[in-house]
Amino acid sequence: MKLRDLGEFNFINRISKAIKLSSHVVKGIGDDAAVLKYTKDKYLLFTTDILLEGKHFYKGSSAGLVGKKALSSNISDIVAMGGIPKFAVISIGLPGSMNLKYADELYKGIRKVADKFSVDLVGGDTVGSNKIIINIALIGEVEIKNLALRSKAKKEDAIFVTGDIGGSIKLKHLNFTPRLKEARYLVKNFKINSMIDVSDGLLADLAHILEESDKGAVIYEKTIPVSNDAIDFNSAMRDGEDFELIFTLPKKQADRLEDIWPFETRLSRIGRICSGRKGFYLIRKNGKSEKIKSAGFTHF
Amino acid sequence: MKLRDLGEFNFINRISKAIKLSSHVVKGIGDDAAVLKYTKDKYLLFTTDILLEGKHFYKGSSAGLVGKKALSSNISDIVAMGGIPKFAVISIGLPGSMNLKYADELYKGIRKVADKFSVDLVGGDTVGSNKIIINIALIGEVEIKNLALRSKAKKEDAIFVTGDIGGSIKLKHLNFTPRLKEARYLVKNFKINSMIDVSDGLLADLAHILEESDKGAVIYEKTIPVSNDAIDFNSAMRDGEDFELIFTLPKKQADRLEDIWPFETRLSRIGRICSGRKGFYLIRKNGKSEKIKSAGFTHF
Repeated sequence: MKLRDLGEFNFINRISKAIKLSSHVVKGIGDDAAVLKYTKDKYLLFTTDILLEGKHFYKGSSAGLVGKKALSSNISDIVAMGGIPKFAVISIGLPGSMNLKYADELYKGIRKVADKFSVDLVGGDTVGSNKIIINIALIGEVEIKNLALRSKAKKEDAIFVTGDIGGSIKLKHLNFTPRLKEARYLVKNFKINSMIDVSDGLLADLAHILEESDKGAVIYEKTIPVSNDAIDFNSAMRDGEDFELIFTLPKKQADRLEDIWPFETRLSRIGRICSGRKGFYLIRKNGKSEKIKSAGFTHF
Repeated sequence: MKLRDLGEFNFINRISKAIKLSSHVVKGIGDDAAVLKYTKDKYLLFTTDILLEGKHFYKGSSAGLVGKKALSSNISDIVAMGGIPKFAVISIGLPGSMNLKYADELYKGIRKVADKFSVDLVGGDTVGSNKIIINIALIGEVEIKNLALRSKAKKEDAIFVTGDIGGSIKLKHLNFTPRLKEARYLVKNFKINSMIDVSDGLLADLAHILEESDKGAVIYEKTIPVSNDAIDFNSAMRDGEDFELIFTLPKKQADRLEDIWPFETRLSRIGRICSGRKGFYLIRKNGKSEKIKSAGFTHF
């Protein structure tokens, strides 16, 4: 059997099942970041993301934006846990024939994001490579009481998404700002039952929450904030790398949140969580109900 | 200017100089692992290593050994700081056309090392890629009093190396055991002033200690443990990826260490640290002294 026949998510499940973890690990594979015991009040968070030329960006992509994306996508994972990014190590593969100027711009892109989010760039590995490869691993931390997992969505929770969805391939997938201030506001002021960032596409990422929480959901087409860059509604639902947040919280808290949301970032209430038996449904603008067979970007 | 004209170490220096670090960082780029403030008694250690097919291993390399190397090389970095490895995240790029069996063997190789060294595999990233790419990032910890840096070698320190040097390309670069128990014994029972693992070659890695410590050294050809796998003495001195430890400690402690070294692992006292003005010399078997212009494996 080939990897491509098994598929990415099945492969990850397969790996994940074979791994035994110690009691120092609160959450291993299967969320945006790993959760590790740390101090009395805090957990450590640990995540990694790899970007490949020809896959996540192209030879013509601005070096500064490639660097920006490499760190920002990791920060977005820490943010989706309710945490704060702290320390990063950077592995980089670059062709020896590359102009120093391009390499400098790439690191400058990383550095600008690091400065903005107070991330310390503390180490790395450098290697010659035909194609550009960037892997960043990021340590963050979160107060134990503020941790947001994928697996704790509750029946009757309202489902929200930040920003606009879809069409990120036009530019946003390279040039986005992780929703740190929004997420920190949410976990500090509300009971956020579950949260994830949109990397595989809105439907696929909401499906991750549902699967991990063993729940179903109903979402409404008319409430979903489709980006002007998206081709259409259906593709927007499956486009990846929006790096927006999907989160759920109890209905009463949701009403209060809508009243007092203090940011310019758009906030959309797109549906509600229901019991796992009910499945995952999209209510179309014409009122028709459509069962979602989870679908998003897959990497093999 | 091209990257290859600047060279790997100059490039890393260039990046490193542009980075400003917060007071949470005890040591950033420039040692085997970053050192971060953690608890009252301990530091966190943080390192990363990237392995590329065609560079660090080949299509024909045993999948299990490739996995073993990927984690072991990271553990070796933590070990060289005097620390204990704890938590790893794994980014992996694999062709969709790859046989599931190869991928399974690769992960099994990683898992066996993780089990042996009690490392928790807590997360990762998976991506389709024409060539195999493995990046592991590893968190470790070390008691503050046991931290071993590259930068604290003292005048008159004795210089030691574990195991044999050179010819690792034959097999050892894939199939080695990080010197965890030896390093922990050293830092717990002796005043280890400096330590590094041999990844760029004995001369180059000792030169890293000398540069970071602003010291010189004299080493003796006749005392250096050249592997039977090495082509000759000169190449052994420049071969990389031995993953042995080079360390220095005060002369008196060195005498005691030689008396009581409890491991089967060979231990060789190869020379001594001298003042920075004196430079770095190799004394040949015929008694002639040769100035070392640092040289080892470079990655562009």
